Amino acid sequence: MPISPEQQAEIDEQRSSPQPTLRAVSEGMESHLYTAYPVLDHGFIRVIDYMGNDEAICQAARVSYGKGTKSVQNDEGLIRYLMRHWHSTPFEMCEIKLHVKLPVFVARQWIRHRTANVNEYSARYSILDREFYIPEPSHINAQSVINNQGRGGVLEGAEAARVLEILKSDSNRAYDNYEAMIAETGPDGEPQDGLARELARMNLPANIYTQWYWKVDLHNLFHFLRLRADSHAQYEIRVYADAICKVVADWVPAAYGAFEDYRLGGATMSGKALDCVRRMLKGEEVTQETSGMSKGEWREFEGAIK
Amino acid sequence: MPISPEQQAEIDEQRSSPQPTLRAVSEGMESHLYTAYPVLDHGFIRVIDYMGNDEAICQAARVSYGKGTKSVQNDEGLIRYLMRHWHSTPFEMCEIKLHVKLPVFVARQWIRHRTANVNEYSARYSILDREFYIPEPSHINAQSVINNQGRGGVLEGAEAARVLEILKSDSNRAYDNYEAMIAETGPDGEPQDGLARELARMNLPANIYTQWYWKVDLHNLFHFLRLRADSHAQYEIRVYADAICKVVADWVPAAYGAFEDYRLGGATMSGKALDCVRRMLKGEEVTQETSGMSKGEWREFEGAIK
Amino acid sequence: MPISPEQQAEIDEQRSSPQPTLRAVSEGMESHLYTAYPVLDHGFIRVIDYMGNDEAICQAARVSYGKGTKSVQNDEGLIRYLMRHWHSTPFEMCEIKLHVKLPVFVARQWIRHRTANVNEYSARYSILDREFYIPEPSHINAQSVINNQGRGGVLEGAEAARVLEILKSDSNRAYDNYEAMIAETGPDGEPQDGLARELARMNLPANIYTQWYWKVDLHNLFHFLRLRADSHAQYEIRVYADAICKVVADWVPAAYGAFEDYRLGGATMSGKALDCVRRMLKGEEVTQETSGMSKGEWREFEGAIK
Amino acid sequence: MPISPEQQAEIDEQRSSPQPTLRAVSEGMESHLYTAYPVLDHGFIRVIDYMGNDEAICQAARVSYGKGTKSVQNDEGLIRYLMRHWHSTPFEMCEIKLHVKLPVFVARQWIRHRTANVNEYSARYSILDREFYIPEPSHINAQSVINNQGRGGVLEGAEAARVLEILKSDSNRAYDNYEAMIAETGPDGEPQDGLARELARMNLPANIYTQWYWKVDLHNLFHFLRLRADSHAQYEIRVYADAICKVVADWVPAAYGAFEDYRLGGATMSGKALDCVRRMLKGEEVTQETSGMSKGEWREFEGAIK
Repeated sequence: MPISPEQQAEIDEQRSSPQPTLRAVSEGMESHLYTAYPVLDHGFIRVIDYMGNDEAICQAARVSYGKGTKSVQNDEGLIRYLMRHWHSTPFEMCEIKLHVKLPVFVARQWIRHRTANVNEYSARYSILDREFYIPEPSHINAQSVINNQGRGGVLEGAEAARVLEILKSDSNRAYDNYEAMIAETGPDGEPQDGLARELARMNLPANIYTQWYWKVDLHNLFHFLRLRADSHAQYEIRVYADAICKVVADWVPAAYGAFEDYRLGGATMSGKALDCVRRMLKGEEVTQETSGMSKGEWREFEGAIK
Repeated sequence: MPISPEQQAEIDEQRSSPQPTLRAVSEGMESHLYTAYPVLDHGFIRVIDYMGNDEAICQAARVSYGKGTKSVQNDEGLIRYLMRHWHSTPFEMCEIKLHVKLPVFVARQWIRHRTANVNEYSARYSILDREFYIPEPSHINAQSVINNQGRGGVLEGAEAARVLEILKSDSNRAYDNYEAMIAETGPDGEPQDGLARELARMNLPANIYTQWYWKVDLHNLFHFLRLRADSHAQYEIRVYADAICKVVADWVPAAYGAFEDYRLGGATMSGKALDCVRRMLKGEEVTQETSGMSKGEWREFEGAIK
Repeated sequence: MPISPEQQAEIDEQRSSPQPTLRAVSEGMESHLYTAYPVLDHGFIRVIDYMGNDEAICQAARVSYGKGTKSVQNDEGLIRYLMRHWHSTPFEMCEIKLHVKLPVFVARQWIRHRTANVNEYSARYSILDREFYIPEPSHINAQSVINNQGRGGVLEGAEAARVLEILKSDSNRAYDNYEAMIAETGPDGEPQDGLARELARMNLPANIYTQWYWKVDLHNLFHFLRLRADSHAQYEIRVYADAICKVVADWVPAAYGAFEDYRLGGATMSGKALDCVRRMLKGEEVTQETSGMSKGEWREFEGAIK
Repeated sequence: MPISPEQQAEIDEQRSSPQPTLRAVSEGMESHLYTAYPVLDHGFIRVIDYMGNDEAICQAARVSYGKGTKSVQNDEGLIRYLMRHWHSTPFEMCEIKLHVKLPVFVARQWIRHRTANVNEYSARYSILDREFYIPEPSHINAQSVINNQGRGGVLEGAEAARVLEILKSDSNRAYDNYEAMIAETGPDGEPQDGLARELARMNLPANIYTQWYWKVDLHNLFHFLRLRADSHAQYEIRVYADAICKVVADWVPAAYGAFEDYRLGGATMSGKALDCVRRMLKGEEVTQETSGMSKGEWREFEGAIK
């Protein structure tokens, strides 16, 4: 269970006590604040704080004194222009702070995005909970035979059952032993010193859950989302990216709309690819052999234009 | 005049319309929002937005669900501990966005702090105003004879008058010519094309004012303030740092207090310096010659302990 | 004159004394080391140091013990794959250190690229030289009437002459006065204190030359080059980017080739643009009105595919 | 065994083929290149590449054309001055690239230093080796009773034996099951699909070894070393920091000497601490109660000056 009754009470309390502020407010985002949206079996994302909204992006782009134009349409046009021409600094003027609970192997991918602020729950200082990610049967896949770092079809029957059984029993055994090592009582009830937490944690597998506060500006968040909401990303991080996309869409609707069109739904074409498009539009029949592209490139090119 | 009546009206409007929010609020900071605090002759700083407060620092350090302890004293102790042991990440969980108007030569020092977000008024796109920094007579100093990159005594008499006259007349001439080059009418009233702004700006001297939105997290802001509110910093940037210190003290009083004690008012001692302190506390008479320090180091050491 | 005879002698000496190293070497780059390539009227770029080569990119991507495959073709394929899929970290494993001399208004654009290391010549500490950028007549353009932050046609006749005359005479007057203010002798030969350098510099216009050491990894350099070698970049920074492109092409030929194809010669298409391409390939006549794009977007789209 | 015979042959080959270069060379560092220095039971660090040396720091600080002064003494004085006054940019002009093999729980601490470039061995793409960190008996400690995130005394007797037995058997069981899940043959020899590597890795505990290429500039490396070679750092990362210190001392002897004196061997004193030193030097008997410091602060203060 991701959230205990006491934790839920704390969340509820925060959600019930609005205070006046003079800052820019995003009404869409206020409705999400503090709420924990479940991801995977024990994880969640929840918004702790945010700075700015669509208007703030425009205000910064114009270095203006007031709120900018009253016209929402002008603001949206400006935001689309900024996104199209890679003017990233105005998007950096919005900031979001999330509380995320996630398996360690997902955290290890996530942290590779360096332009962010992180406070992780310390397993040197605290004791981790017995919470492990065990995939749904529909997400237990074979190694892909085309893509060396991806997944193929769903495992079935006895093989799937064995995998599930291994993941469950190894997690539990590792946690039992983690508890035994840090305990102040030995197996026969005798007192013992208890192993240091910073050492005991090394017995825990990568599907254990950790949690952190993660703060990032909107430009770098979009970069994270483009890579991690992508179909090539590992499923277990993609579901976090998808959950974040939903709150961002309500926080900064115009910026998210531009991001969706130009980044998530767009594609980068090489010089060779553009050349092929031009030739095809003139009626030429272009094949991989005559394209100048490698097989992999051509496959991706065809995926984009067909 | 730094702020026009229309701009002031925009500021007043923003200050008069509080909205409800569920986010962490700093009452001390709300009272500063949007107000332009004058710095130098035409410059200012004003807070556009902020994220977090003292409690938010503790909440992130604890990766907690609610607001953290109710005890202000516990929070302050934790904050002092974090500051003392260089645990910088919880301070990164607060963020501030400033609108700053400043001379270009100050902006050039400021921008060297890379971990921040910036949107500067574009002189490719817009026309700069006729506003130049002309120092007060009490801040027109000679080159220092001790420190190769500092200032010595105040200039006086005819020399001071000449400097002031040069700065004023060269600024005005440069601006007149800037205007003439971008004008659509030539000197005799004939139509002309007008030089591109991105080229015309190169005629403007480094004391012209520019402005930007600058967003930074509290940890990196403290780093900026430590270096720029320091007595070795150039006066013209130090006054900006001092103005920012005042609002930060109201925004996050506990964090600012710890910063003041451990960073602004503290000093870093080398191994050699610590050794000298130990010897002196045992009653030894230590001199520069017996200290193992260079003359410069010894002078700074004496400055710290006397 | 960008390089004095003494400086040239220092450069020649460095170029004449190879030493043995066990590190990865790029022969193409060795031939460029230290040489100052002129840019604009007094500027230059010169390579001071570099780390890595094409092989080093592949070695890092494979986290391998030796140099990687002996096959150049495999390495090139891997590099193209990494570039196409935005795997940026292996490119970060190469590093370059440049010495650049450039006008201040160019330096102000350049420094906005934050992920780099910079040491700039200090005008608090040292006296700047009398060197100003005065554009060639063919690069004195009018403000663009289409693009609010670009240039239009070349200025001609009396207007061009006036601009040149202003830039020259204002630069010289500003420098004369800079010298007079820091001098230890007043206008009538009497001794004076001399204004502090950190103050006197504020009289100098933005076309004065400064210089710096600039160190950056290859991934971030490519990002810089994509934006600054682009036709929308200001001419005066573009020529620096072009000069850097030439040495990078010799340093890491495979990586530069992939960069040229996927970034410099490529284009990012939005979801709407991809949809139009698909419709056009099916024979539909698509216009701006039926495209769903704004006029600006449509113009750029047509530029890419025609 | 950290390095296979084939890997050692590759390393030997690289070490035996020097090539000429015009770049700055550090002879002290050349002697370390590629050699794997063992750390913990299966880990190592080895230098893959470096940029710059002590002279290069001074050259950048002076933005000079040649190599800088011939005087080593002047260079050392400048380097000490730069370190003492937190002029960090010249140190950023040196860069090092390391190949590191380390347990995952150490990697998780290490990666928190964000200003660095990393390529980690991919467990989505490749199969990890059966190599786990099992502490020496002398490094199996109890949880500290003073410091909530540290270690106390060494565990002894049956308790220590139980811990070792758990760590060994759980690691091996986890790895056996990892292999079984990705295998293309089931437990009874029947063919199976084999679980995707990106999923199977989640069964592996945090003491498994990973490896990466890690590239960082000297300023940020010093920051890393100050925090991780510190006595408060976890032993298992401290031994890596210590091993790196040794090669850095040979790479940039003057910079490392200044780092040792001002950072490793130094201490930061708060305003309160400085005040106490002043009072004590005047003969006052200062106690924790009259110091204005908390108990923790006072304990650390006494540690520094006694």
